Amino acid sequence: MIPGKFIAFEGGEGCGKSTQARLLVDALAGRGIDAVLTREPGGTPGAEAIRRLLLDPPGEGWGAEAEALLFAAARADHVARLIRPEIAKGRWVISDRYVDSSRAYQGGAGGVGDEAVQALHAIGSGGLRPDLTILLTVDPETAVARTRARDGDAADAIGGRDAGYHRTVGETFARLAASEDERIAVIDGGAAPEVVHEAVWGAVSPITGIGT
Amino acid sequence: MIPGKFIAFEGGEGCGKSTQARLLVDALAGRGIDAVLTREPGGTPGAEAIRRLLLDPPGEGWGAEAEALLFAAARADHVARLIRPEIAKGRWVISDRYVDSSRAYQGGAGGVGDEAVQALHAIGSGGLRPDLTILLTVDPETAVARTRARDGDAADAIGGRDAGYHRTVGETFARLAASEDERIAVIDGGAAPEVVHEAVWGAVSPITGIGT
Repeated sequence: MIPGKFIAFEGGEGCGKSTQARLLVDALAGRGIDAVLTREPGGTPGAEAIRRLLLDPPGEGWGAEAEALLFAAARADHVARLIRPEIAKGRWVISDRYVDSSRAYQGGAGGVGDEAVQALHAIGSGGLRPDLTILLTVDPETAVARTRARDGDAADAIGGRDAGYHRTVGETFARLAASEDERIAVIDGGAAPEVVHEAVWGAVSPITGIGT
Repeated sequence: MIPGKFIAFEGGEGCGKSTQARLLVDALAGRGIDAVLTREPGGTPGAEAIRRLLLDPPGEGWGAEAEALLFAAARADHVARLIRPEIAKGRWVISDRYVDSSRAYQGGAGGVGDEAVQALHAIGSGGLRPDLTILLTVDPETAVARTRARDGDAADAIGGRDAGYHRTVGETFARLAASEDERIAVIDGGAAPEVVHEAVWGAVSPITGIGT
């Protein structure tokens, strides 16, 4: 059995991750590649329960450290119960967010630091990295317009944080991409979905083994 | 303002931690020391929500790594929102379980390892240690009889694990106490509650500053 591949979409709010993850799964299916669409936080019953605590926290809301630990716990369950087993069966796994989101949000904007987030990932998930990570970037105005159209005033506990927080998220993503340019492909997410998808496919096709 | 003290009770199932923690809070109150009784996992709204996930897990139950991360997340909230603020106000905090339980259960019996559990504690809670930890020990037969009288057949996801797991918990606690005998006082929890309390008070009174 040839193991499947693991691809993660990353980026700030409203960059088009969920749409592009879906389009990629469809494109892979069209070429005979069986791919599972999943998301973080979530993807398994345990991780989805943690997702609810993260996005709608009890009490005063989580501090940055507790939040980083909860994301790492959800990811540990997701990796152990879904990502590794599916890859082992030869399926591809396409995830809407993964560990680089924790590095950008809790590590960078939350102040927990990249070293700590990577330590949590090593303990929780054996440090598993995607074969390819696609970072979608959009300008702040497009991001705000898209998230407002999607969520109205009902932003969750993390998406609803202030502009300074989300600016640091974007800067941290850019820094990660610059330092790991073999793994992370940066794609402009500002165009129409099918245009962005063509660029995504251009990054993915070299690892499919079936050409473009 | 003189900071308060932080005392944790530790030990396996049925060793009398909850009873002794309550008796200690009463004894301190009787000497004019204002002490807060709390527990782990739990003690704050956020940590109590995590407690429910730990003791009654969704899906297939948590792997050892996810479980260790969830305990560390609950503890981070407990330390940040209750333990540190109460100590800073001059109150004493008496906790039914703390980080040594994670070291014995997830670290030792769960196989996550002591180094990993201590790394999680450093990231989540700045590595905060109690001023004094009281480890209550009981023989396995007494433990089984007490937990059966308390829980019937309704053991939670952790208390209900097999005898080999709980034996390793006990052995790990003993090893921690031997290596940190300045901080951890080992007290036989097998006698009647008031007899055990006398021994607990003997360990606590030197740090009260009021004599026995």
